[in-house]
Order: sequence, then structure tokens, then C-alpha cells
Amino acid sequence: MSAEEKLLRISQGWLGEGPVDLIQLCLFDWAACALAGKDEPVAQILARQSGIEGNASVVGGGKTSAADAALINGSTGHALDYDDTHFDHLGHTSAVIMPAVLALAEDQSITSTAQILEAALVGSEAAVRIGLWLGRDHYQVGFHQTATSGAIGAVVAGARLLQLNETQTRHAIGLVATGASGLKGQFGTMGKPLNAGLAARSGVESTLWAQAGLTADANGVTQFGATHHGQSNECAWSEDAPWKIARISHKFHACCHGLHAMLEALREINGPVVELNVQTHPRWMTVCNNPSPATGLECKFSYAMTAAMTVSGVDTAVIASFSDSTATDAKLIAVRDTVKVTPDETLSEMQSRVDVTYADETTATFFHDLSAPLDMKTRETRVRAKADALIGGQAAALWDAIQSEDISPIMDVLRG
Amino acid sequence: MSAEEKLLRISQGWLGEGPVDLIQLCLFDWAACALAGKDEPVAQILARQSGIEGNASVVGGGKTSAADAALINGSTGHALDYDDTHFDHLGHTSAVIMPAVLALAEDQSITSTAQILEAALVGSEAAVRIGLWLGRDHYQVGFHQTATSGAIGAVVAGARLLQLNETQTRHAIGLVATGASGLKGQFGTMGKPLNAGLAARSGVESTLWAQAGLTADANGVTQFGATHHGQSNECAWSEDAPWKIARISHKFHACCHGLHAMLEALREINGPVVELNVQTHPRWMTVCNNPSPATGLECKFSYAMTAAMTVSGVDTAVIASFSDSTATDAKLIAVRDTVKVTPDETLSEMQSRVDVTYADETTATFFHDLSAPLDMKTRETRVRAKADALIGGQAAALWDAIQSEDISPIMDVLRG
Repeated sequence: MSAEEKLLRISQGWLGEGPVDLIQLCLFDWAACALAGKDEPVAQILARQSGIEGNASVVGGGKTSAADAALINGSTGHALDYDDTHFDHLGHTSAVIMPAVLALAEDQSITSTAQILEAALVGSEAAVRIGLWLGRDHYQVGFHQTATSGAIGAVVAGARLLQLNETQTRHAIGLVATGASGLKGQFGTMGKPLNAGLAARSGVESTLWAQAGLTADANGVTQFGATHHGQSNECAWSEDAPWKIARISHKFHACCHGLHAMLEALREINGPVVELNVQTHPRWMTVCNNPSPATGLECKFSYAMTAAMTVSGVDTAVIASFSDSTATDAKLIAVRDTVKVTPDETLSEMQSRVDVTYADETTATFFHDLSAPLDMKTRETRVRAKADALIGGQAAALWDAIQSEDISPIMDVLRG
Repeated sequence: MSAEEKLLRISQGWLGEGPVDLIQLCLFDWAACALAGKDEPVAQILARQSGIEGNASVVGGGKTSAADAALINGSTGHALDYDDTHFDHLGHTSAVIMPAVLALAEDQSITSTAQILEAALVGSEAAVRIGLWLGRDHYQVGFHQTATSGAIGAVVAGARLLQLNETQTRHAIGLVATGASGLKGQFGTMGKPLNAGLAARSGVESTLWAQAGLTADANGVTQFGATHHGQSNECAWSEDAPWKIARISHKFHACCHGLHAMLEALREINGPVVELNVQTHPRWMTVCNNPSPATGLECKFSYAMTAAMTVSGVDTAVIASFSDSTATDAKLIAVRDTVKVTPDETLSEMQSRVDVTYADETTATFFHDLSAPLDMKTRETRVRAKADALIGGQAAALWDAIQSEDISPIMDVLRG
């Protein structure tokens, strides 16, 4: 069965009931990241460029068209690179799906939070599965899977939300396939969050255009795979673990993902430390092992400094912790220089082991695997603490709003 | 030197003075095609979807934002597939460049026709050269070069028109590279003209975003080539024939391009005909050699029927000539069935030979090569006749407007 057929079925509820509570938490986490990113230059510039009046809320203030809201909010939510990640999808799902469904819902006066979460759930699942279907080659050659698979997932979310009929859904899927784009080479520039925004807009527009009668080729996604180095992995459609979205990861540290397994392992430490020996997958040694970072940005790529920050009580969840004054803090530097980092081929890319020597000369070893599932209660606690660190007082209001049956309180908080 | 460097130089006037008169004719031809296409469903749907107020004219009526105008007009101008073609670019240049420069000019209150034509000239040239640089593989694997190379050309036009500085131009080029898209599999659906519209919008937005301060990777186009099966053909940058745009072709018949060499050869016939023997490149035998078309659409892919139409005085420049009643006209069918079509490997894809037997039993052979350059006077006469066939009385008003030093009369005619 073709990729288009599978996407159509996902939009029609093929997978049955899913983890709506997890998607609700994803919406909360995405909204916190978007609010925290609203003053980033990419967010400000795109918002200024849109002079349009419309029904769809812009994070940080105002309303615009659904297409422009998806573009702006998609870029804003990904500006800090702190939103959720899925390692099958090979990218960030909520970054694209959430701004797309929210913009479509407001545009079409769909107010039910339950309906919106249901659409976000099938759209996120479709994005992950299309990411798996395209495979690693697509990413390795240079495509930004967050954007490409994300746009396709956004159209599945849109088709579900607007209850497009089968013909319209097929056209929407064809339309998004010819507009999906995004290059990984943009990492490190505003082009990276822009890719997420363009993908969200592409999902919104393809949905609305198909609803309005635009036609497209029925095999668009198949062609997209063939032209964009897709592997057509059939395992993408397996039904044995229906909700692949369940394995989504939330970021709890405002730094390179390669550091996260170590930072989670360090949470187990319970006393003053005199020595730290970190073991990690060899791939990370050239990515985030800067032994003496000179700036806040460089601290985000340093095992030694982020370990020093953690054992010294500097919160790595807080974006402002990664400042130039952190990099030059003499006490932190003294701790930093006691940290040893060694590669270990027996570890996966998502695992880290830390040998600790406490001040009382006892030792301990802590291990963390990021791919190990987090129970919902723990995940909720961590995500809420992260939101507190990111947006302070707004976090509580956002949490309350997200429980509402009606979407408008969420949008009120997002507009700020 | 990198592709980005070459594009920057083209935007800065590297190639010196160029054939502005030809570009002026391209603008006229594009505008006639757009006016003729304004009632096509794709044009109507996109125009309805844009509820935006702005400074940029929509073909057929109203004003909207620069981005939306580029999207709508780009799709409208290509809806009939009757706009100009460049065989090096491997697509339609004006389809993307013209709507982009017109929308940017109106948005930024640039009124000088000379400035707009200059920008369209360098943008069209850049599109052709990027098309050559990407090469045939890019097209063969499934990308719609009109859209991909077109978007990149549109940003060069935009940078020139808005006089972006060097840094801004580099960012604009990087931004368009991550947003450029378009699949050839959309041919035969509204997705084809939509690709042209999306490309025009991408050019407009990337220009405006870079002007407003968005940043992007400096090697975007190089990455685009690497990920999109580009061949990096260095011949694209040759300086020996500086203006490759000079070889642009205008379509004079509202049917498959494979028929045009024959239809041009048939123009030499000067008396009643009893037999026609058409020779053509073998590739076309499976594309447009329907011996007994049943519908108007099928007539567009029939040597025998279009030859019969021509010798019977039915104008193949007129879109309405390709009707179902033409397909079933007994007199035309009688002529159609006397036409023989044979493949000839010695002919190029752009050549055709026709052996004619006149009613007085004399014979003649006519040959046409579409790649032979057309002198400006002949080209102008033919393009104007085509515009008369397409839009009747509006053609004269459009011709007058195109001579104006100020762009507003052209936009008045386009709004209708």
C-alpha cells in the first residue's frame, strides 16, 4: 500500500485511540518554548512582515491569517531549539504540527481542545511515520526532516481537523508534497526555525487549498520520496506498536542534545564531588566536547562546563544560564577542569555513564539512557519545571489554560 | 567560484547591458497569458483564498500583499501553459520572474518600467544559468525546474530591484534555497501552475525577509544542488555568450510543444493540399501522435489533427480552437486521416520536416527548427498576433501600456 494510502488512513483514525494526554503535554511544552522565543529576531522579523488581519493568533500578540500565523508561530516555537524531539522522525514534531493545527482551528472557528488534540495526535504520528519511511538517508544527504516530514504530518492533522473528505485529503497530501522543503545546512542560522515555520504554513495552506478545490497528483508523496533520497522503509507502517509518537523526547536542558544523557545521569549525584569521569558515545566527542568554552554559546557544546554547572547548582534548563559570564566564572572553571571525558563504543548515542568521586572519597557510577521511556507523571513534573524555568509566572497560567475544553484560553496566553 | 558568488555577481550587473527589448516582449507575452488564464479554477481559488489588503495587483482584479500577488499571479500566468520556455533553463522563466518583480515593485513603490525590466532581465538570466548548473538530472529525477531554478532567479531579480546590499543578497539567496521546491509529477493537475506561483512567492519573500534582517546559510544553493540531484555544470557560468536568455522561445500554438516545429513548417504551405507526410524526432511519437483524438484536449497531442486544423484555416494559436467539436468535425477528420507521421532519427527534438503534395500534384518540402533564432521584428509580430488571439481587444491596450515609462498602466490592464 502506498504512502499516500497510509497517510489517508491515519487521518481517518486507522490507529484507534491514542495517547492524547501525552499530546496535551507536548502542546504545553511547545507553547512554553514559543512564549520563551517570542523576542528572538526571527520571530520579530516575521511578525513585522505580516501586516495581515485575520482570525489566527500570533505568539506574543495580535492576529493574522492562518497561513501567516503558522509561519510566524512555527518559526517562533523552534527559535530556541528547545522543543520536543522524536528520534524515529529524526526531528522535532510539535514544532510544525502545533502551530499548524492551532492556526487552522482558529481560522475555521473550531474551539474544542479535544478535537484539536486529536488532530495534533494523528498529525504528529503521521510525521513520525513519514520520517521513518523517508529514513536516515534523507536526513544524511541534507534534508531537514523536521520540516519535510513535518509539513506532510501537518496536512494529515489539517485534514483530520477540518474533516476533509477522501478526495480533498488526497489532494491536500499531493499539494504538500510539491511544496515541502528545508535544508539542514541552515542549522546555526535563522533559516533553521524558518524551515519549521514554512513547513507549518505549507501544511495549513495545502489543507485549505484542497478544501477550496485545488487538485494535485495522487502520488505526490511517493514522488517526494523518490526525488528526496527517501528509502521507502516499509517498517514505517507497522501496526504492532500503533503509536510511535509515544516515544517522543522532551528536552530538559538548554544545550546540545549530545549532553543530555550525561546531564540526566548527573541528577543522581547527592553530595559534594571532587572528580567526574564522563563516558559517552564516540560520535559526540567532535560535537560537544569543548574543554574550555569561551562564550555562553560555546558552553552549550561542552561536557566539562555543563557538568560543572550541574554540580555547582547552575540550572541547565534555564536559557540565561548559558551566558558569557558563566563561561568566564572562575569557580565554574575550576570545577570544569576536573572533569574527564572519554569515548566508549559500547554506549549508544543516547546513553552516558559517569563515574563520580565524592568529597568523602566514596565513589559511585550513574548511567542514563535517553531512550528509556519516562512515565507520564515524571514527564509532566519535568516539563512543568522546564516551563517554570523558561517563562516564569506564565507557566502556571498556561498549564491551567491547557486543561480547558475550549481553545481560547490557550490562545489568550499565547498572545500574551 | 561558487554558485552563490555567481548569482551575487549577476545581481550586481556582472553581465553588463542586456537585451531589455526582449525582456519587455517577454513581459507582454506573460501578461497576455496571465490575462487569458485569469478565469482558470486555480487562479480563481487562490485569489479567493487571499483575503488580504495590500499594494500589489492581482491579475483579474484587486490588490493584495506582495507575497500573495506573486503566488496568485504566478499560478495564473502558467495556468494555460502557454507562456515562454527556455530549453537551457529547462522550463518557463517569465512564469516565475515576472509576477515576482511586479509584486515587489508595487509593494516597494518602485514605478520605473526600466528598473523593473532590468531586474527581470538579470533574474531571468540567473534562472536560466541555475537551470544549466543544476542540469538535466535534476529535471529527469522529477524536479520541476520552472519552479526550483525559477525561485532562485526570482531572488536575484528581487535583490537587483530592491538594491539589497551584498550581505542581504547572500542571505536572500540562502533563504530561497531552503524554500525552493516543486515536483514534475504535478503535471496535468493544478499543482503545476501552483509550483510556479509558490516559486514566485518564495523569491518575493526571501528578498523581503533578507531586507528585513533574516539570516541564512551562505552555501544554500550549493547544498540545494547537492541534495536535489544537481550536476554543478560549470558551463552555466560561461561568459562567451553573456545573455543566455536571448535564446528564449515563445509558444505560438496552444498545444504540446512537440507539435510546434511541424506547425511552424506548415506555415509555408501556399495552396490546397491533398497529402501531408510529417517527419519528427522519434521521442515525440509516444507523446503527441494521437492519430484520432476524441476530445479537444486530445487534439493538443495530435500531429494529424493539428496539421488538419492548420491547412483548414483553424487557428492553433487560439485556445478555443482545441474544443471537443473540433475533434468530431467531419471535414477536419477527413483531412486528418490523410496525414502520415513518421519518426526520423536524423532530426533533433526541435526540428520537423513536412512533405506536401498540393492539389495540382506539385510537391514541396518544408523544414523548421525551433532553436533557430527569431529576429526581434518577427518575434514581436508573432507575439502580438498570439496576444490578439488570446485576449482580443485587451492586447492593444496591453501593448500601449508596456511602452510606458511608469509601471502603473501595465498593472491597470492586468487588474482588468
